Amino acid sequence: MKKLKLNKAFTLIESGPVVLVTTQDGKKNNIMTISWTMVVDFTPRFAITTGPWNYSFAALSKTKECVIAIPTVDMIDKVIGIGTCSGASTDKFEKFMLTPRRGKYVRAPLIAECAANIECKVEDIVDKHNIIVLEGVAAYVDTSRRVKQTFHAVGDGTFIVDGRKISRRKMMLSKLPAGV
Amino acid sequence: MKKLKLNKAFTLIESGPVVLVTTQDGKKNNIMTISWTMVVDFTPRFAITTGPWNYSFAALSKTKECVIAIPTVDMIDKVIGIGTCSGASTDKFEKFMLTPRRGKYVRAPLIAECAANIECKVEDIVDKHNIIVLEGVAAYVDTSRRVKQTFHAVGDGTFIVDGRKISRRKMMLSKLPAGV
Repeated sequence: MKKLKLNKAFTLIESGPVVLVTTQDGKKNNIMTISWTMVVDFTPRFAITTGPWNYSFAALSKTKECVIAIPTVDMIDKVIGIGTCSGASTDKFEKFMLTPRRGKYVRAPLIAECAANIECKVEDIVDKHNIIVLEGVAAYVDTSRRVKQTFHAVGDGTFIVDGRKISRRKMMLSKLPAGV
Repeated sequence: MKKLKLNKAFTLIESGPVVLVTTQDGKKNNIMTISWTMVVDFTPRFAITTGPWNYSFAALSKTKECVIAIPTVDMIDKVIGIGTCSGASTDKFEKFMLTPRRGKYVRAPLIAECAANIECKVEDIVDKHNIIVLEGVAAYVDTSRRVKQTFHAVGDGTFIVDGRKISRRKMMLSKLPAGV
């Protein structure tokens, strides 16, 4: 995993891929699958929707830390498996044969197999809307992987894989933050 | 435009496409381009990040109404054009040759050329984080269009077009809301 400049970390989330969010409650690691995420600012800050109905929420609100890990399409069945069982009864790293790796700033683990990881601190929990605001404090990308396409949940049990890329950097220059 | 069941409207947003958001301030229609969006619940509720730096924000906070319109990849240059000029000095419907169409519940216009439109009421403005929570009150899809792929902003001036679709409905059944 190579360090990614923190001011580019929002680009890992903006396109809307399904992500994995890891936590560490002091005893054990856990992972949840989330597709309700949004960039909130470039620094970067992110919002995710989750609440007490997710087992990970207790660890997230207690430790105020997590890692957002970005899986690619070759991992889709693991990602869905993670999203359809509970950390209350399952060691998901073991069950889905994923490798936890120590980050630098938070105790929640990076996922070695993912294309990118963002260490995050919980900045705020907006209880009223079940929105958690996260501050990204470090980001990493695996530049050596063969499969790079992320995938996007439609919400009806189908998924959209990243297709072709289009550049409009020239048209967008006035809107891009410095250095991105 | 065909009416879409409201409990399926979240599927228009969940995958993370770039969207257009229209407003009507009592005098004129306006449009902004947004890629910082998230589903908040299935009913549906959505969150978008915007604030006083966007000209549309004044109309949005005054009227408490908007329409989220979903463009497809053939519209990318219009969408970027809309996102890089201001409604303060531009009639964007005219400049980008888009057709405003009356909705049923809000005064903000649907965009006839878009693949889908969601009439929305502002439920809350979380000032601290520049997050606006919207309640979708009606949704429409154009089932007759040839081009159906949406596109996703990476945030660095490049965009990802929808690629192939994968179904995992069977694996996901336990997580899908009724009727979706």
